Amino acid sequence: MQTKNIAIVGSGLVGSLLALYLRKRNYSVTVFDRRPDIRTIEFSGRSINLAMSVRGWKTLDNIGIGDEVRKLAIPMHKRTMHVTGEPVYHQYYGKDGEAIFSIPRGILNKKMITLAENAGVVFRFNEKVWDIDLPEAKIYTGETEKSEWKEYQYDMIFGCDGAFSRVRHKMQRRSRFNYSQKFLNTGYKELGIPPNPDGSHKLDKNSLHIWPRGKFMLIALPNLDGSFTCTLFMPHEGENSFETLTNDDQVRKFWKQHFSDTIAIMPTLLNDFKNNPTSALVTIKCYPWTYWNKVALVGDSAHAIVPFYGQGMNAGFEDISVLDEIIEKLGDDNWEAIFETYQKARKPNADAIAELSYRNFIEMSSKTADPEFLLRKKIEKRFAEKYPNKWMPLYSRVTFSHRPYAEALETGEYQAAIMDQVMEMDNIESIWDSDEVEQYIFELLNAKKYNFQN
Amino acid sequence: MQTKNIAIVGSGLVGSLLALYLRKRNYSVTVFDRRPDIRTIEFSGRSINLAMSVRGWKTLDNIGIGDEVRKLAIPMHKRTMHVTGEPVYHQYYGKDGEAIFSIPRGILNKKMITLAENAGVVFRFNEKVWDIDLPEAKIYTGETEKSEWKEYQYDMIFGCDGAFSRVRHKMQRRSRFNYSQKFLNTGYKELGIPPNPDGSHKLDKNSLHIWPRGKFMLIALPNLDGSFTCTLFMPHEGENSFETLTNDDQVRKFWKQHFSDTIAIMPTLLNDFKNNPTSALVTIKCYPWTYWNKVALVGDSAHAIVPFYGQGMNAGFEDISVLDEIIEKLGDDNWEAIFETYQKARKPNADAIAELSYRNFIEMSSKTADPEFLLRKKIEKRFAEKYPNKWMPLYSRVTFSHRPYAEALETGEYQAAIMDQVMEMDNIESIWDSDEVEQYIFELLNAKKYNFQN
Repeated sequence: MQTKNIAIVGSGLVGSLLALYLRKRNYSVTVFDRRPDIRTIEFSGRSINLAMSVRGWKTLDNIGIGDEVRKLAIPMHKRTMHVTGEPVYHQYYGKDGEAIFSIPRGILNKKMITLAENAGVVFRFNEKVWDIDLPEAKIYTGETEKSEWKEYQYDMIFGCDGAFSRVRHKMQRRSRFNYSQKFLNTGYKELGIPPNPDGSHKLDKNSLHIWPRGKFMLIALPNLDGSFTCTLFMPHEGENSFETLTNDDQVRKFWKQHFSDTIAIMPTLLNDFKNNPTSALVTIKCYPWTYWNKVALVGDSAHAIVPFYGQGMNAGFEDISVLDEIIEKLGDDNWEAIFETYQKARKPNADAIAELSYRNFIEMSSKTADPEFLLRKKIEKRFAEKYPNKWMPLYSRVTFSHRPYAEALETGEYQAAIMDQVMEMDNIESIWDSDEVEQYIFELLNAKKYNFQN
Repeated sequence: MQTKNIAIVGSGLVGSLLALYLRKRNYSVTVFDRRPDIRTIEFSGRSINLAMSVRGWKTLDNIGIGDEVRKLAIPMHKRTMHVTGEPVYHQYYGKDGEAIFSIPRGILNKKMITLAENAGVVFRFNEKVWDIDLPEAKIYTGETEKSEWKEYQYDMIFGCDGAFSRVRHKMQRRSRFNYSQKFLNTGYKELGIPPNPDGSHKLDKNSLHIWPRGKFMLIALPNLDGSFTCTLFMPHEGENSFETLTNDDQVRKFWKQHFSDTIAIMPTLLNDFKNNPTSALVTIKCYPWTYWNKVALVGDSAHAIVPFYGQGMNAGFEDISVLDEIIEKLGDDNWEAIFETYQKARKPNADAIAELSYRNFIEMSSKTADPEFLLRKKIEKRFAEKYPNKWMPLYSRVTFSHRPYAEALETGEYQAAIMDQVMEMDNIESIWDSDEVEQYIFELLNAKKYNFQN
């Protein structure tokens, strides 16, 4: 039997990991990328650090590279909250030992490309795909849109070319292709906290640091070299917006007012602010994700989400492990069935994590500083720890479980409705850890006969 | 003062009418269209007939061409319902004399182009716009995407190039442009009822005829020549779908089962079915609609909707009259302010008519045959006729008023909530025209203190 020739468009995290998976199945795999080889250039860093959680790790472990990647990652067990006028405090993400892992995108991507290349994947960098013949699985590349194009023929094409995917763009011009792109009014800018002279971290390194300020917030994720990568999320326009911070004086004044506790540890603030771009945040949804047995979208090209749940890469990696399970189950003859099963399995979950990520922006930027919200989380956490089979918190279900995102969204809404009622109990502030509260939660759970699968 | 040079992309109904409006303001106006002059070709008809209502007429009357267009139109005062196993019956659209007007798109478009041309608008047919430089207001046309392009410089560009607008496509590739295209699972196919040998109509000509069949329906709109243009709306796939009707036998059998009363009057059914394309139905939303003081989208390019409220063209024409009012009010110096005011004024109304049109599909195809729905309409109609200042039915507010679509949507939802309560009254079937019902409606209206503006 002849091996299939597969093209992957995009050498990012999802593209290079999918390449590795398909190569391990003995396909001939070529990856196209319009950019140069990321290993040969200084990474320009226009992305927050990644937070790898169990869905991502599973996909890496299944192909045997989890441990190598773990060496690049720093575990973060908690949020460290820097609320104005209050002492710094922690919110643990999960149970003992559970953590999300900070990894710089550039370092991870370089690693993955090398692993794929070593496995026999061919990378064609600096080669821009301009057009795709979907039914024929042909790819056209060239210098410019109007130059002579080179034609490649494949058996299948995977579009792993990110939120502004050229492959999806081609599918989008067909009839009956549903598509939406929705931008937040909030944008982001990357900033930095350098290491101490001795290479140690200036803040607790096993934390995701948050400075919540209502409509805007600063976060910081640790790097192995002792530095932190910070991201300022803030509206593009209006009061306290990127629009109002156009020179050093304005930035300095704004920082002094809202983030004065970070001034000492951010010596490069003014330069970072000036030199790093202000980027937009977008949610992209589409359907179908596949075309016959010829073309499929995987990762951000199918479902770009906002970063507030730290699940963008994890969701993309989960696409790959789900796809791989489907190939394993159906056999690799009938790709039309594989693609159909894949898109039907993943679409509801992609929609769910898009919604959850959007909602988490509200939680991170404003609610994490709200005493009622904190009490609510405390009650939920206590109950969940005591009765883990009855209550898995939404964050844990998303981050520390492999349960489908769609189930997490549904269960989370149900739990929220219960907690709304609990928070209306008289004197909830004083009785929060009482048997009464516990019994009430049981009652509400039983009333709905909801089946919490863990 | 130098007159501005304006380009309009698209010579359809909205493009040619906007051209006329701008020309009357003494601008120099050129209209580009990739298609040949519609006046020189047999119109291929891949569109249901238009139903002009007061929003459309206002825009035509304001520029003095309403009466000329009225000569091409047939008033339809009512729906004529052809429900299986029941006698044919009527539902009047509005008050005495109120009607929507059937006009074939092709005939109207030819008329509008001639009127614009006579006013001095230049039309460049068979000239395809491939690219647009938004900040410079430049247009690039050519034979193919890869051929040499011709460059034109304008002061402003209007994108009136429909649902799959090239102008919008260019705006869409920019950051922070929100966009969605959502297809219905229902598609449509145009069919015909020819005139009688004496040129008369085979059905009541002052009606919009509907054969509601649940998930699919047939409609017919009259033409001046005695014919009717019919449209079959039906799911693409599944039971009773286009997918299942692929040969004459299947069509014949299906028709006999579901539309047997039309067989005698549709002698060209089998040919029509075979030769006419099955088309898709899409709702398109986007924002912003304008770029600086340079580019604006008008009509379907900004807000394509499904046809079930008969408001697609009316909404596009209303864009033009609203834009014209804004120019009149702000003066024609500051186009950035004009465009900003225009898009802010129209966007909520475009979203509202999109939603109303989508909901009306459900109403037309299934509810119009439902006795409870009919009773509900009867109660509403009775109350509205008796107390016109208290209750303008949703359909009338959309079709026979100039109140904003967004208000119609909001008011309609409020009225629906009231009617839900009324329909739950004991014995509503027998007391529907009683004082008791009337008093209850008053009570509910007063309870909410809702201000119905008429």
